[in-house]
Amino acid sequence: MKAVVYDDGLRLSSDYPLPQPAAGEVRLRTLLAGICNTDLEVVRGYAGFRGVLGHEFIAVVDQAEDPRLVGRRVVGEINASCGTCQACRAGRRTHCPNRTALGIRGRDGALAEYFCLPVENLHPVPEEIPDRSAVFVEPLAAACRIPDQVHLRPSDRVVVLGDGKLGLLVAQVLALTGCHLLVIGRHPEKLAILAARGIAVALDRDGLPAGADLVVECTGQAGGFDTARQMLRPEGTLVLKSTYHGLVATDLSQLVVDEIRIVGSRCGPFPAALRLLEQGLVSVEPLIEAVYPLDEAVAALEHAGARGALKILVQPEPAA
Amino acid sequence: MKAVVYDDGLRLSSDYPLPQPAAGEVRLRTLLAGICNTDLEVVRGYAGFRGVLGHEFIAVVDQAEDPRLVGRRVVGEINASCGTCQACRAGRRTHCPNRTALGIRGRDGALAEYFCLPVENLHPVPEEIPDRSAVFVEPLAAACRIPDQVHLRPSDRVVVLGDGKLGLLVAQVLALTGCHLLVIGRHPEKLAILAARGIAVALDRDGLPAGADLVVECTGQAGGFDTARQMLRPEGTLVLKSTYHGLVATDLSQLVVDEIRIVGSRCGPFPAALRLLEQGLVSVEPLIEAVYPLDEAVAALEHAGARGALKILVQPEPAA
Repeated sequence: MKAVVYDDGLRLSSDYPLPQPAAGEVRLRTLLAGICNTDLEVVRGYAGFRGVLGHEFIAVVDQAEDPRLVGRRVVGEINASCGTCQACRAGRRTHCPNRTALGIRGRDGALAEYFCLPVENLHPVPEEIPDRSAVFVEPLAAACRIPDQVHLRPSDRVVVLGDGKLGLLVAQVLALTGCHLLVIGRHPEKLAILAARGIAVALDRDGLPAGADLVVECTGQAGGFDTARQMLRPEGTLVLKSTYHGLVATDLSQLVVDEIRIVGSRCGPFPAALRLLEQGLVSVEPLIEAVYPLDEAVAALEHAGARGALKILVQPEPAA
Repeated sequence: MKAVVYDDGLRLSSDYPLPQPAAGEVRLRTLLAGICNTDLEVVRGYAGFRGVLGHEFIAVVDQAEDPRLVGRRVVGEINASCGTCQACRAGRRTHCPNRTALGIRGRDGALAEYFCLPVENLHPVPEEIPDRSAVFVEPLAAACRIPDQVHLRPSDRVVVLGDGKLGLLVAQVLALTGCHLLVIGRHPEKLAILAARGIAVALDRDGLPAGADLVVECTGQAGGFDTARQMLRPEGTLVLKSTYHGLVATDLSQLVVDEIRIVGSRCGPFPAALRLLEQGLVSVEPLIEAVYPLDEAVAALEHAGARGALKILVQPEPAA
């Protein structure tokens, strides 16, 4: 089958072995896959992954132990956990030390015609949600992880720093609390997507506000940490969503003096993301910049890495 | 009067002006003052302070607008806030941007015969608590700040890293929750103070545990952050208590992947600290290493800075 492989370099393979589902797994046929900044970081060496890239998808069940599943349109959680270790038993399955993660850690990903996931990872997608929206469920769930971790009050002053793909989703989710939200970015055309929904936006070159209760760092760049930090009030909360290569130098004493809270935030609840899409409470399709056929996936990844690019999708040939 | 002054260098002044209380303030006569690592950091340039050092004390009210206060034995919160700014109105008075802090920021401290504080900062000390215990109320309150900020469960696995003065107080406070506590340090004689109370202790050179729900960093050294981080489970909480000069290089992506929570923690509730002392639930006098007369305060600060030193107290001459 065709698959986007990262090993010695990045390449499209046209004879990658068709994956065979292990016990408890299904084989999925990709309808549409999204390219995430994490995919670009993996190609830069992040996480030391080798294999098929891709973890954002909408797919159809192609092969399953339970024949009723075949043909179902699904999205799926990307972490496949062991279910038996201490973390799994404590309900922290996304942190299972034995986990694989789709296209990131020990498991071939969704930028391919076919791939496999445990059946327990799947979530059926309501008919009302089109493929072009459903492919956003994984990053939208990551945005929903923030209110899962932090108590957001409608009276809070909140800043989302970064107008990339994740920032635009985070902003839409946090705006639903009614909080006093400002999104700070560098791209007027991206901020306009939020402004059209009535969300306050500003360009970072026009100055930064101070005194925020909560700042979400979504820039994907090391410099974002200090910028986010400056906007926080004492006892404020800084949520880190970005992953990137490298170390950041921090004045930890200042975190103590101001009693700052820092919260690392990763994967989130798929059911919440599906509900938000089904109710039309967030709008994801304006984030799509281009759709490439799988044959042109290497060019798609290049496009996704271009400065300011929004969501790039990859579509295998429709099944015959 | 006599006072320990830090300006061009550290010195004992014998003709420092007797402080005059401003409106709403009282003048206090020091009975006993403690030397904190923060005092040593101030002498190294931390916080850019110039003036009389010292913020841990037990004192007697010497002059007050309300004559009934004169002669009362008191401890006092070290932050003098404006009461009118947004932070004060929101109940975050210790973070008032206009605040002074005793012996740390814009206000002469307690390593002197006399000093001043707002009357609202004072807490009367019950007779049952001797001076040698009451002088620990400020750092004990800082230890009580941790359960004020973080929900500590009796079933939590908790590590206190550092067996300095603050670590020994933090450990005693956290042990009261019934949690699974381990204190890791470098000084068998200090750890023995905790072991005598039934608290589990270990030397860092004997290896570090993994999988802690909560780690409190009390080493006072930049390297403590990474050591503390390593002991934490995913979704665990790292409480930072140490303040020191300088930057620490951190892999923020790893905080995101493991969804770590970091909480800066500073000044805490004096009433809780007084209750713990009154009930005999913590033992502070074994932490006293030496008591110096005020005349020898410079030597006392040197002693406090020696590797492994515990609490050094300074005592002005008893009033005639």
